[in-house]
Amino acid sequence: MSIDELRQQIDSIDQQLVELLVARSRVTAAIGAFKRERGLALYVPERESELLGARREQARAAGADPDLVEDVLRRVMRGSYSSQETSLPAVGDVRTPVVIIGGRGAMGRLMASLFERAGYVVRVIDVDNLDELAAAVTDAGLVVVSVPIDRTAQVIAALPKLPPDCVLCDITSVKQIPLAAMLEAHAGPVVGLHPMFGPDVRSLVKQVIVVCPGRDAQRYDWLLRQLEAWGGLLREESPAAHDQAMQMIQAMRHFTTIAYGVFLSRQPADLEQLLRLSSPIYRLELAMVGRLFAQSPMLYTDIMLQAEHLPELISEYRHALDELLALVRSDDRDGLIARFRDVQGYFGELAPRLLAESAELLRKMHDAQGPKAG
Amino acid sequence: MSIDELRQQIDSIDQQLVELLVARSRVTAAIGAFKRERGLALYVPERESELLGARREQARAAGADPDLVEDVLRRVMRGSYSSQETSLPAVGDVRTPVVIIGGRGAMGRLMASLFERAGYVVRVIDVDNLDELAAAVTDAGLVVVSVPIDRTAQVIAALPKLPPDCVLCDITSVKQIPLAAMLEAHAGPVVGLHPMFGPDVRSLVKQVIVVCPGRDAQRYDWLLRQLEAWGGLLREESPAAHDQAMQMIQAMRHFTTIAYGVFLSRQPADLEQLLRLSSPIYRLELAMVGRLFAQSPMLYTDIMLQAEHLPELISEYRHALDELLALVRSDDRDGLIARFRDVQGYFGELAPRLLAESAELLRKMHDAQGPKAG
Repeated sequence: MSIDELRQQIDSIDQQLVELLVARSRVTAAIGAFKRERGLALYVPERESELLGARREQARAAGADPDLVEDVLRRVMRGSYSSQETSLPAVGDVRTPVVIIGGRGAMGRLMASLFERAGYVVRVIDVDNLDELAAAVTDAGLVVVSVPIDRTAQVIAALPKLPPDCVLCDITSVKQIPLAAMLEAHAGPVVGLHPMFGPDVRSLVKQVIVVCPGRDAQRYDWLLRQLEAWGGLLREESPAAHDQAMQMIQAMRHFTTIAYGVFLSRQPADLEQLLRLSSPIYRLELAMVGRLFAQSPMLYTDIMLQAEHLPELISEYRHALDELLALVRSDDRDGLIARFRDVQGYFGELAPRLLAESAELLRKMHDAQGPKAG
Repeated sequence: MSIDELRQQIDSIDQQLVELLVARSRVTAAIGAFKRERGLALYVPERESELLGARREQARAAGADPDLVEDVLRRVMRGSYSSQETSLPAVGDVRTPVVIIGGRGAMGRLMASLFERAGYVVRVIDVDNLDELAAAVTDAGLVVVSVPIDRTAQVIAALPKLPPDCVLCDITSVKQIPLAAMLEAHAGPVVGLHPMFGPDVRSLVKQVIVVCPGRDAQRYDWLLRQLEAWGGLLREESPAAHDQAMQMIQAMRHFTTIAYGVFLSRQPADLEQLLRLSSPIYRLELAMVGRLFAQSPMLYTDIMLQAEHLPELISEYRHALDELLALVRSDDRDGLIARFRDVQGYFGELAPRLLAESAELLRKMHDAQGPKAG
């Protein structure tokens, strides 16, 4: 057979593949409607796991690559979650209004959209129109505080009286201060939430939300079940443990990334040339730096300034840096290798796991390279 | 229809999908064999671009998501490249032996495997058996130096006399010193290569290789065309510009990553807890740190020690860090925001591009989360 004939076969197979994907999306839309009517969870881990297992087995039996089949199906399932989400299941009483304070910010809009798509009555109060708040909360079942970090405590302190059963929650990146303020401001059910994702997510499915209990867990339980029904993965933590972990997860990483950006901007470095010569891994590293600077300076600054122990952490990082710099300056190969091995011991078995995980990710990043679709 | 019936429909569609993927891989295997027989390039950007364009158009016309279709096809194409690569096309004269010095190291093994799969006579010389070299090179058409950085110049200086037409190349991460040594050691064609990927790649398709011309470009041209036929993307640079860029791309990033690892290992931080609470972005950041420590301490140490200006670069980074630390200590919100905006100006339009690119990657990373296939 000629190469043209073989390529025609590929085109015909790919055409059937697209037809199947179209047919599949019709069925998942029907499943989505079915689940919404009954308030069922969109994301059912056991079903996903069974489905993948069966298809991997089929691939293996046919001598095909089960990892390829799993990757393809996971990508297809992501598409079906987001298409199912034009409407979302409701767990709570949709007639009891949800009030989003700061609902015009990016995260506030996301929260408002989730509740709206589930059919709740949603009232959005802009942070600059807090005088509308008193009227809005009189019959509210849930008040979500979604304002910039530096205004959170102040907005909470100024809240009007809420109905006794109304749930009060916030979605700030720090948890001790807002939670204390909420417990002070409201005598009813209180819970602190920290969504570990940005407003650019297309779905809550498999997204982590940290939950810091405040008061009356039974009465805010419907809210947690609601987040789970949308696919969220809840992780309960004390506010102190949360804030401690976030100093590392957020404040320190943001700080060192910003410092690297400042350093880079003062070098005679041509970013386009660096990208042209880059391996996928460096392209990704540069993307991790660059992506920060496409976002809000205020948000990142406030996360850093709210992290109580950040100056000490930075000093310790600087100490590690100076120690290594001294070894580089004195050309101390053995000393550098010894430090490297110390950290290897610390990461232990996690290091090869993270290597494998990131290697697969880099391959996916690589898939997307090359010429754009014509 | 009940949810069970709908799920059966999904299972039936997915089953057909796997069957199509199996059928597709048979056709691509036939294409691979066809290309190898005729020495044709495996990766043809125009064909890929046409194929994707046609399927996107079909998806759009059917009301489906073209991005989903493109993602799926790109993943499938990756699979077909690697399955086509059990044998590879040959551009040069396969009877003229290829000698790989250091061919037992990870990169050396990869190079040996590429030439072997293309049908070349390959002779592997271990870095500890250099006395075998003189006999191995008498009729060689290509000698590839693939030894640790700290031994490269010494191994090159000790090379036996090569046939006048033999191409001499190295694949070291630095280029000025090895290239000067090769030009000194051999009077024939010389070229410096730097593959911008690790030994864990499964295919050369779309992988960047930096090419630093040495001498007699016409006579080593077959080697460059050979790398391109395997799918490599060649980027020509002068050795000085290469080494300058790599101080940023490799040495600086490795240094700050190792420093962060040392810092982290001295914190009372529980890595598993940090991962449990992590957003996809922090998980990725932690993976970028952890992955380094699953690799060779010697390799990373030598890359850092060979980077001539690394101490100055680190000092400048440290200066940026101290400047920001002072702002954090004095709670200078406006100062921090001003520094942030400076870097925003530097990144310019690249920042939103990198944000979009990494956001899509994080979604792919996210696809892979959740329970394993049952």
